Amino acid sequence: MGAPQPQPIGPDRFADDPAFAVHEGGKLSVRPTRPIETVADLALTYTPGVARVSSAIAGDPGLARRFTWAPRVVAVVSDGTAVLGLGDIGPAASLPVMEGKACLFSEFGGLSAVPVVLSTTDVDAIVETVAAIAPSFGGINLEDISAPRCFEIEDRLRARLDIPVMHDDQHGTAIVVLAALRNAARVVGRELGDLRVVVAGAGAAGIACTRILLEAGIGDIAVADSRGVLHAGREDLTPVKRWAAENTNRAGHTGTMVEALAGADVYLGLSGGSVPESAIAAMAPGCIVFSLANPIPEVDPEMAARYAAVVATGRSGEPNQINNVLAFPGVFRGAIDAGATGITEEMKLAAATAIAEVVGDELRADHVVPSPLDRRVATAVAEAVAACAREGGITR
Amino acid sequence: MGAPQPQPIGPDRFADDPAFAVHEGGKLSVRPTRPIETVADLALTYTPGVARVSSAIAGDPGLARRFTWAPRVVAVVSDGTAVLGLGDIGPAASLPVMEGKACLFSEFGGLSAVPVVLSTTDVDAIVETVAAIAPSFGGINLEDISAPRCFEIEDRLRARLDIPVMHDDQHGTAIVVLAALRNAARVVGRELGDLRVVVAGAGAAGIACTRILLEAGIGDIAVADSRGVLHAGREDLTPVKRWAAENTNRAGHTGTMVEALAGADVYLGLSGGSVPESAIAAMAPGCIVFSLANPIPEVDPEMAARYAAVVATGRSGEPNQINNVLAFPGVFRGAIDAGATGITEEMKLAAATAIAEVVGDELRADHVVPSPLDRRVATAVAEAVAACAREGGITR
Repeated sequence: MGAPQPQPIGPDRFADDPAFAVHEGGKLSVRPTRPIETVADLALTYTPGVARVSSAIAGDPGLARRFTWAPRVVAVVSDGTAVLGLGDIGPAASLPVMEGKACLFSEFGGLSAVPVVLSTTDVDAIVETVAAIAPSFGGINLEDISAPRCFEIEDRLRARLDIPVMHDDQHGTAIVVLAALRNAARVVGRELGDLRVVVAGAGAAGIACTRILLEAGIGDIAVADSRGVLHAGREDLTPVKRWAAENTNRAGHTGTMVEALAGADVYLGLSGGSVPESAIAAMAPGCIVFSLANPIPEVDPEMAARYAAVVATGRSGEPNQINNVLAFPGVFRGAIDAGATGITEEMKLAAATAIAEVVGDELRADHVVPSPLDRRVATAVAEAVAACAREGGITR
Repeated sequence: MGAPQPQPIGPDRFADDPAFAVHEGGKLSVRPTRPIETVADLALTYTPGVARVSSAIAGDPGLARRFTWAPRVVAVVSDGTAVLGLGDIGPAASLPVMEGKACLFSEFGGLSAVPVVLSTTDVDAIVETVAAIAPSFGGINLEDISAPRCFEIEDRLRARLDIPVMHDDQHGTAIVVLAALRNAARVVGRELGDLRVVVAGAGAAGIACTRILLEAGIGDIAVADSRGVLHAGREDLTPVKRWAAENTNRAGHTGTMVEALAGADVYLGLSGGSVPESAIAAMAPGCIVFSLANPIPEVDPEMAARYAAVVATGRSGEPNQINNVLAFPGVFRGAIDAGATGITEEMKLAAATAIAEVVGDELRADHVVPSPLDRRVATAVAEAVAACAREGGITR
């Protein structure tokens, strides 16, 4: 029997948009890896043969890594509360995004991935649910969960589970931003650690980018939310923003993001609201503008190019696209290949370096990151991440 | 990048058993239904194109049936507490069975299926977990969950969810048993409703078979657990066994299963313990023996054949194999094709009739059910189940 396909009824209002054609019937399929055509196939794949495999695993749980698919499957988990630029659209409407992510895990990472969208937005319930289903999977990719809930959910699951757990909106973005910034610094002939950075946006991506830039040695970072630069004197901060206020803003800014941008070397826009041309014009000469809001960047890229030496966006099909697909397939593949029990900060830094190095001699102002379709990237990232996990001694 | 494969280290103690070779690296793979090779493919499958599809579903949730894979995916859910004849072996060791089931959903039902094995055995936690992940799926196949917990878990999930939920160890078995018994009655020239039946075993399968046989019009059924026939005077009964005691045993048996078997027309063994030859010899002439314990039937089939007109077992590759694969792929496929919000008793009865009818003119004493590999079965079952759902008005 072929796969069931939905039947559109009557004139089809979606016929003009090819995105809907690509989604007809869904974008994923689960298939057996070996045919089941004979009585013998059936008796090995299912009863009675399967009982011998289950018995062996019951006696030696480590055999599950070899004889089940779980270690090679990533759950793409979302509660649908922060989906792309669409916001809280719920689990059903978030599914196409999670299916797309699973497609990319397969295409670029050689991994299976399963969308798991949740009917609850309660932090405790999400943690308990993911922990309950965790024996089915080899990794947990958290996706499109709103801040600040995403921080607690990820922290608790990382502490509780012995498989890789990563909130991609945080760390996937942070890894690719660091890779791009490494190469952008090379283009403008600067040391990474000498750059003065303004991060616009203190949500999931803004906080994670701040963290990885600090770890990469950038000391002068100002982080702003919609009310202005984070500083220790503000009394409206969530715990995570308070952490950022206490670990950034060496210059002691207390005003707006635009004020902090005067003389800065790097603008990193992560849903930080639109930025006037005068603010970009006031940045340091040879500055770097990464404006990653989608579909409309905070800074118009053509305008930015009049002032900045390097411009990057999240836009599909344009130069310097900061796309998480450069990170997550290789990060999970490397962690899984190494049998890692988690994803450390060192593994993320190694991933960023590997992405940056794929560019190699092709480095130009309009090519600081590889194309999202460059198949060398996931392989290089996986190797770097696996090596880092083995060196860190966090493998099984 | 190809799929990751586990590397056996040193001499391989599993090399001699082909069941392990079939399980190497797991038995399932999730793949995109369409290639992702160009920037355009990426922009339609993922951002920015996917945002238009997610927006459309957010505005009209019914579109998820058309533009996501969820309606065509079955979760195969287990806590690993009652796996085959192996008992409570836990989630990891149960995974090969759930993967095998998912393979069969794909091969015979044209559906995707995902194993979901749970780190909890708590009834409330299982119900909450499955309800939380339900928006990801179009059906829930509960599997290898011990009795009596399985009854409450299924009941609560059926009440709570608007997608098909079925505990296959109960109803898959019951459907195939009824199909086989319909045809066995034809072989011996008896009316189904006139048969006197003894059900040995009052676990998940025993109770569900009793229920479907009652619904099919068999009035004289005695059900026995390890302590003897269920009757209303017993004070050691779980709620489900009490239901059975109050709705069966018209003859008022109070003794052992073997005593009830004297003069009976049908022995239905479902993990009911071994049966002495004298008990089979004391059954009515032209009797029917279904001995379904695996891998060792309660009644030796060769011995049974000396007394019974029809003998069936659960054994792979032998005549009259009672195999759930004859039921579950078609039942879920039919329910999903019809957009059914659940699986009714009528749908199960329709499935049993459809399986029995596939045998048609090939009916013989050693061929009362189709081969598990007969591809006509799932199609016939799906059509019958979908038609029944539509007639019952439980479709979307």
